[in-house]
Amino acid sequence: MSAPSPSTASSSASSPHQRLLTLWGEIRDFAGIEELLEWDQETTMPRRGVAGRAKALGTVAAAKHARLTAAELVETIAEAAAAAPAGSVEAGQAAEARRQVERAVRIPARLASELAEARALGQAAWQEARRRADFAAFEPHLARLIALKKEEAAVVAPGGNAYDALLDVYEPGATSAALNPLFTRLRGELSPLVKAVAEAGRPVDEAPARGHFPFAAQRALALELVAAIGFDLEAGRLDGSTHPFCVGINPGDVRLTWRWQEDDFRPALYGVLHEAGHGLYEQGLPPAWFRTPLGDAVSLGIHESQSRLWENQVGRSRAFWQWALPRFQAHFGSTAGLEQLWPTLHVVRPSLIRVEADEATYNLHVLVRFELEKALFAGDLSVAELPAAWDDLYAEVLGVRPANAAEGVLQDIHWSMGSFGYFPTYTLGTLAAAQLFAAAERTCGSFAGSFAGGDFSALLAWLRSNVHRHGSTLRPAELVERATGKPLGPEDFMTYLRGILQAIYQL
Amino acid sequence: MSAPSPSTASSSASSPHQRLLTLWGEIRDFAGIEELLEWDQETTMPRRGVAGRAKALGTVAAAKHARLTAAELVETIAEAAAAAPAGSVEAGQAAEARRQVERAVRIPARLASELAEARALGQAAWQEARRRADFAAFEPHLARLIALKKEEAAVVAPGGNAYDALLDVYEPGATSAALNPLFTRLRGELSPLVKAVAEAGRPVDEAPARGHFPFAAQRALALELVAAIGFDLEAGRLDGSTHPFCVGINPGDVRLTWRWQEDDFRPALYGVLHEAGHGLYEQGLPPAWFRTPLGDAVSLGIHESQSRLWENQVGRSRAFWQWALPRFQAHFGSTAGLEQLWPTLHVVRPSLIRVEADEATYNLHVLVRFELEKALFAGDLSVAELPAAWDDLYAEVLGVRPANAAEGVLQDIHWSMGSFGYFPTYTLGTLAAAQLFAAAERTCGSFAGSFAGGDFSALLAWLRSNVHRHGSTLRPAELVERATGKPLGPEDFMTYLRGILQAIYQL
Repeated sequence: MSAPSPSTASSSASSPHQRLLTLWGEIRDFAGIEELLEWDQETTMPRRGVAGRAKALGTVAAAKHARLTAAELVETIAEAAAAAPAGSVEAGQAAEARRQVERAVRIPARLASELAEARALGQAAWQEARRRADFAAFEPHLARLIALKKEEAAVVAPGGNAYDALLDVYEPGATSAALNPLFTRLRGELSPLVKAVAEAGRPVDEAPARGHFPFAAQRALALELVAAIGFDLEAGRLDGSTHPFCVGINPGDVRLTWRWQEDDFRPALYGVLHEAGHGLYEQGLPPAWFRTPLGDAVSLGIHESQSRLWENQVGRSRAFWQWALPRFQAHFGSTAGLEQLWPTLHVVRPSLIRVEADEATYNLHVLVRFELEKALFAGDLSVAELPAAWDDLYAEVLGVRPANAAEGVLQDIHWSMGSFGYFPTYTLGTLAAAQLFAAAERTCGSFAGSFAGGDFSALLAWLRSNVHRHGSTLRPAELVERATGKPLGPEDFMTYLRGILQAIYQL
Repeated sequence: MSAPSPSTASSSASSPHQRLLTLWGEIRDFAGIEELLEWDQETTMPRRGVAGRAKALGTVAAAKHARLTAAELVETIAEAAAAAPAGSVEAGQAAEARRQVERAVRIPARLASELAEARALGQAAWQEARRRADFAAFEPHLARLIALKKEEAAVVAPGGNAYDALLDVYEPGATSAALNPLFTRLRGELSPLVKAVAEAGRPVDEAPARGHFPFAAQRALALELVAAIGFDLEAGRLDGSTHPFCVGINPGDVRLTWRWQEDDFRPALYGVLHEAGHGLYEQGLPPAWFRTPLGDAVSLGIHESQSRLWENQVGRSRAFWQWALPRFQAHFGSTAGLEQLWPTLHVVRPSLIRVEADEATYNLHVLVRFELEKALFAGDLSVAELPAAWDDLYAEVLGVRPANAAEGVLQDIHWSMGSFGYFPTYTLGTLAAAQLFAAAERTCGSFAGSFAGGDFSALLAWLRSNVHRHGSTLRPAELVERATGKPLGPEDFMTYLRGILQAIYQL
């Protein structure tokens, strides 16, 4: 089987549905190539390759965009939709293709290509700026990216809310109007909890989590754990990068990245479990739908629900550690017991770095970014004012103030990639993780026994069946409601969190 | 600066020359992406990514082919050629573009795409077949690749010699009719020399080259040496692979691969110096011409002249080792002296593996492949008969017989990539290396003094000026004649080789 060019596809006598899949396959191939090029840039590429890589990414983005907006595709979708029985998979494929095409046709090829190149240059500048804690070196790139994304929002949703137009890419159907009350409620419930922990005066002894954890042992343990939860290492890898992430190049090639420090095992281990949760979703997408409109994940929020679930509901549970502890002890030569180690995984303490934040403060980190993004896109905040605004908001919401831009506004990769409206999906995912896990236990019974025996297959099977196998047939809100029996809300997350804090801090 | 799509290019008011460069830039981007995808597949990709990667490579090949054969490009080349002053760089750009396009337009999109996918699947099958020394597992892939390449030859040069049509891709202007007498002469001169070495009864003591050479020390020494000869490691990398190669993704991203064994430092070190010679050429191509028709290397033969020159004329010279020896001793804790070590770099002994062959027998390895390729494409040899024919020809020409397919017909990657007609360029390159080096010393004086001081800059400068900076403005034969004052021949190579054999074996 070959991947025919568009002209081959159009001249064949196959059905509109078949022609749609042929055209879509190429689009998905280019998306996978973009993922690989970006992964390579972050993990492997020599420093001086940046300019050439930016050109290549621009060309791939333009090629993908040209195919996504080609008249031939628009016509084929219409024909496929007309020919498909209502409610059939074929109708779903055509509908999902149309949704994506309708957004893309509004974006001119020039803008798509400029964005791709600005992202490549922006990422390189960010890496260097972060290393030197020098916001000024990143500022012009960020300004350029925001200008281009404002342009994108204006053509995609003329006259509408610019920020919502960007949010919709990551979380179809989400709006800042709907998110505002959710974040307000979370802040209202989380702030007193965080304060109560501080006032409880029962600090966790973190000694068992600190010491010397050699890189090679951390890597060996991480690989052992991700394999145990079901991540297929023959269809994936783990490599170092400045910022951990996961790419699904294709279902047989899912790559996790991580970073590590040798004086504390927790940041690396939970980073890897988090990315492996994403990876399990990518590896679990329906293989028969690979290279079709319905073959990818529902949304970033649902993607994040999978990473948070494996990181927190599984990886920080007592049951998981009943199984993992001997492995931990063997890899690090540690003699720490469960009662010493487990509390160190739930330390609540306002801090500066989102990806290393605890479960109680994490959503407050997201809230800071959500507020700043809204202000940037509403024109209420300039890029020059951003670092100070960041620091002030951290001081106000979390009570801590960054000492420099590397531990402040430069900490995350997202903005350097032109990803605005992405951060709120972290909170949506965190809430969905708790809600999905609670629903899975209602169906399957408590997982504690199987986790303690190192068996995670029942949970993975439930997620495969209720989340992964759907591809993108459902909208995020619909998927959560079907899988859990109720709309997405903060209740299960708050119940989970209060349970943890009660166990650790006797709140 | 962005990489506009074709439609953007055509609608602009820029000159035909500018439009040609814009269109060509995209083609070069896709070529660089192919290089990266193939590098990644050989060094990094998880095993199960193979099917998805094959699809992606098919899509990139189809996209590149579609651009190379687009009516818009053909017309733009004609306009640019008409507008360019005779003898100008602009005229050269248009002429080189036309040469490549004329070949490509004869290849249907379907065939280009099928070839790309067959190459990806073929490489994966070859890797596995080689590991298991199982030719049967590779045979159907090889048969498919040969059938597709015959189809390619038939459309490119209808009614012509199929093998010559393939040869021309790698070495513009070369023909088997011209190569036959060259190989006959080399065989006639080399066979008695190899025999004389055997009969001289003065075997080299190889003990200083054997022992335990830890991977990390081999890597550190290799990186030190390639940096010393001028390879920019901020614009390149070194990684492990089944078969050593070099890719020039862009001038700032040139990747060398190697393999190593810990009981003998020579195969890895000379593999790396060889690939670094290729890498120096890629890094030395004129930066202003990157993404233009004249911006790439002249031919594979000239490429190979650069790798052989740095591997042999430089890396196996006494002068080089006067400088390298203390580094060698430090990395490996060796106490071997120059008089012990240097002869081990010139051991002549008929062997089975081309990439580890000595200078006297190397061209005989190439001759075997040249003869087999001609027979395969003339229809005188079937794929099923190939392993036996390989073994018989090795016995006849080199006096050795492979014990299995891994050390026989499966040893090289080339055929698995659909590269037929590639091998003869190794011999052309070997001869050109000696001829270029002799010419450089005629101009600059002996390099022995500077090499002994670790200074390789004068030689590199001469190569930059006489080879690299030309991009592909010259045909291979023309480049050699301009740089050395005479047509390519075996004389300088035989003089070099006789000098070595006299020093080592007192022949």
